Amino acid sequence: MIDSYPSQLLQNAVDEFGKLPGVGRKTALRLVLHLLRQDPKRSEALGESIIRLRHEVHYCKACHNISDSETCSICSDPRRDHRTICVVENVKDVMIIESTHQFSGVYHVLGGLISPMDGIGPSQLEIDSLVTRVRQGGVDEVILALSTTIEGDTTNFYIFRKLAEFANLKITTLARGVSVGDELEYTDSVTLGRSIQNRTLFTHSFPQK
Amino acid sequence: MIDSYPSQLLQNAVDEFGKLPGVGRKTALRLVLHLLRQDPKRSEALGESIIRLRHEVHYCKACHNISDSETCSICSDPRRDHRTICVVENVKDVMIIESTHQFSGVYHVLGGLISPMDGIGPSQLEIDSLVTRVRQGGVDEVILALSTTIEGDTTNFYIFRKLAEFANLKITTLARGVSVGDELEYTDSVTLGRSIQNRTLFTHSFPQK
Repeated sequence: MIDSYPSQLLQNAVDEFGKLPGVGRKTALRLVLHLLRQDPKRSEALGESIIRLRHEVHYCKACHNISDSETCSICSDPRRDHRTICVVENVKDVMIIESTHQFSGVYHVLGGLISPMDGIGPSQLEIDSLVTRVRQGGVDEVILALSTTIEGDTTNFYIFRKLAEFANLKITTLARGVSVGDELEYTDSVTLGRSIQNRTLFTHSFPQK
Repeated sequence: MIDSYPSQLLQNAVDEFGKLPGVGRKTALRLVLHLLRQDPKRSEALGESIIRLRHEVHYCKACHNISDSETCSICSDPRRDHRTICVVENVKDVMIIESTHQFSGVYHVLGGLISPMDGIGPSQLEIDSLVTRVRQGGVDEVILALSTTIEGDTTNFYIFRKLAEFANLKITTLARGVSVGDELEYTDSVTLGRSIQNRTLFTHSFPQK
């Protein structure tokens, strides 16, 4: 265990790196010593990209995706189908679905899933803003593209009931090509792309008596 | 494979993190999304610590260790034994030896080991400056504390021959408590501390006929 640092600057950098998830003190020291060895410009580029990220990044006021401006590049794209909203848990899921190149609609980022165990209730998620978006009209279909976990299913049900008042709205969910119990982010993009194309009516995804 | 980023700022940050050793694109994205979620002040602290590290860090002009000033805290400490110089490969090894609290002398950081396979020759290391330090006088002992690998042994020999001209200089090496073939940084500090106390004359560490 290293308890002695020759430089306060070095120790600060190791401390800060060590706060990242999955980065222990040994890894932090290795990364910092690497930064010291390499071209100063490359180390500065990393530092500045972190600061700019935090200062300048926006969240789209329509879909709550990460954005460089007030409205994200997807919501402001006239070629996208604004009548189809794909509901996802987080920003990463938007990126994963975009990478399948199978979806031309727009998104709605919830910012999490309902999880009583973690103290996350519907009010902490962007569910009310989704209902408002649908109420304002111009939406034909809402695709629920959440992970097939207990939290995902709970959130699906909650949103389904919230949107039940809109008689002409089609509520669909991803085709069950995604294995039950799997996280969305570990699904390969071919399976995920197909499950978007073959999406089914929400009510069809449960066994009928 | 994610090929679509909603934000240029996000993509820049992922690109920069992905250049760190052992950090792939998936890990980089995970770290960046973590930075986005947490308190902005903590992300800024990381970014600034990296930039300050690169702008403000010095290398000690005597021993070439990392330092916050022109002379490092060890070389400028009058309580240290300046007549005993411990030669190490890099800055990390100084930290590792300091953590044993068994050594009260000063250091000399080579900046690497002689390694013809990697194209590293003696002239790229701080060997001449070590000889100059000894020539200036006031040094009783040089401890060679390099890894017990082929590169470490080669460098040991090279330095030993360079310092042979100083008749009254004692040249020692770490006691062979360190297993042959092991990297110094993976040695536990008890073993390492004992091997500093039991250091042997350089000529004694080879089998006699």
